[in-house]
Amino acid sequence: MRSEFDFISHIKKEYDLRRVGDDCAVLPKDPKTDLVITADLLVEDIDFRLDWTTPEFLGHKALAVSLSDVAAMGAKPKWSMLSIGVPEKIWKTKFVDKFYKGWFDLAKQFNVELVGGDVSRTPDKFVVDSIVVGEVAKGRAVQRSGARVGDSIFVTGSLGGSAGGLAALSSAAITRGKTKQLIERHLRPTPRTKIGARLCARNAATAMIDISDGLAADLHHLCDASGVGARVYLDSIPVEPNLDAGPELNEFALAGGEDFELLFTSSRKYFADVDSTPITRIGEITSDTGIVELIVENRATRLPRAGYRHF
Amino acid sequence: MRSEFDFISHIKKEYDLRRVGDDCAVLPKDPKTDLVITADLLVEDIDFRLDWTTPEFLGHKALAVSLSDVAAMGAKPKWSMLSIGVPEKIWKTKFVDKFYKGWFDLAKQFNVELVGGDVSRTPDKFVVDSIVVGEVAKGRAVQRSGARVGDSIFVTGSLGGSAGGLAALSSAAITRGKTKQLIERHLRPTPRTKIGARLCARNAATAMIDISDGLAADLHHLCDASGVGARVYLDSIPVEPNLDAGPELNEFALAGGEDFELLFTSSRKYFADVDSTPITRIGEITSDTGIVELIVENRATRLPRAGYRHF
Repeated sequence: MRSEFDFISHIKKEYDLRRVGDDCAVLPKDPKTDLVITADLLVEDIDFRLDWTTPEFLGHKALAVSLSDVAAMGAKPKWSMLSIGVPEKIWKTKFVDKFYKGWFDLAKQFNVELVGGDVSRTPDKFVVDSIVVGEVAKGRAVQRSGARVGDSIFVTGSLGGSAGGLAALSSAAITRGKTKQLIERHLRPTPRTKIGARLCARNAATAMIDISDGLAADLHHLCDASGVGARVYLDSIPVEPNLDAGPELNEFALAGGEDFELLFTSSRKYFADVDSTPITRIGEITSDTGIVELIVENRATRLPRAGYRHF
Repeated sequence: MRSEFDFISHIKKEYDLRRVGDDCAVLPKDPKTDLVITADLLVEDIDFRLDWTTPEFLGHKALAVSLSDVAAMGAKPKWSMLSIGVPEKIWKTKFVDKFYKGWFDLAKQFNVELVGGDVSRTPDKFVVDSIVVGEVAKGRAVQRSGARVGDSIFVTGSLGGSAGGLAALSSAAITRGKTKQLIERHLRPTPRTKIGARLCARNAATAMIDISDGLAADLHHLCDASGVGARVYLDSIPVEPNLDAGPELNEFALAGGEDFELLFTSSRKYFADVDSTPITRIGEITSDTGIVELIVENRATRLPRAGYRHF
């Protein structure tokens, strides 16, 4: 069965869609400014479960995932639309009010204005489409395609926490670390809005993507778009500190997904922390197009394109 | 149970959302241009049935409903995003390819460029969120709120055809007119893109809305936003010519919805046809705030706020 990535590549080619395929599309605004725009569809029982989250967390996450896409372009979020599909049994409760409360609490932090959207009924599942529009200096949006051989590869924050939280939710019997913090990383992610915009303003990143599908998958996406390869060092990967050591640790950090950290490349070798969020060098860009190597104890292995796929 | 309109009014007030509540939100683009943006969520078994439509018609309709919102602002459509949620049983077929084919056939007519969106899996229903961004001369977007006492009220094309098509689909035994044409009006609506933009360019419309919920409901929306009342003449309403006379005729035309014609007000008393689409004067704006009168054989009755509601 073809993956959604194959399908998107197919229609991009078939219909010559030059703006499709990055975290956001870039549109011309005025002589000094470009717009970026993104949409993220979240579906009950596929992307979230109502018995695992709260309406407030879900409202927060719906906005956070789109803010993360805007951050990955180095842009500043500005306007948003929300389309919600609601089963009647949920409409009758306070769920939707609480969902918007969670949404607006995060929107306020970043001065994002809700300008529209849609409300529909659904037969039995809650769905949300979150649209965010941002602004970035003309021609300066950081795309996936700008990585150059020899660039260093960096990630913000830490990886694997969201997957640890999901594992804790899926199987309450197994404790893999500080459960509450891990679950919050999964249900209530923090978009790296400030770091993304700062990297862009300083012209410091050559390419950028947010880690939504997992480090391995998203690094492959970035390498594909840039026509390069990559080498990453397992020991350098900043694993979520609240995770206990265990057999799944590397799997969570490399392929877990939904950490919503930023993965970027730069000609620089070092970045200072931003508001106590570390920015860690994890490897470098190589000329082996399409190949991502993982260095474990000085030995190179191939990092497969593992990560979350809908199909 | 509160309607979605009550809910939207509530959050608009609660969070002071000044751009929410028209067919599109208006955003500043550059010194000469504003953007308009709209989102329309279509849900299987609520907004459409897969056994009644084809994937091509559904792709067409998903774009058409958003183009209609853009037309109702007097704007020109430019960019689009599509978020689709697809059950695995549909993903495995050619459905999604055909859906995009129908979408792109319409997009091509109006030079609309697909710039992004999302693809997610759903447990068992197909959902689409259609986002369209358009452009309009600065400060010239035609809003619902500009109708003035004494303005004439006009509609484009004819009304009731979509409801007639839906009735024909719902109950194949009953023929209410030229079934094929009526069904096509329901499944494959034509957005009034050219007329909307022309009315705006000539500064001819004081207020405008598209007829998606039904004439009665949408005229109430326009009157509410403008703080006025209206009087419409039943005899003047251009009923879909393919509908046979019958007891539901007025119901279809007044409250049927999904005709995607434009309803607008103007200080002018007459408009010529545009490409053989008539523009018909159906009444006038009055000072009876919130009251819509229907004149039937010289007698005034109250036109209730009937129309499609999700809740």
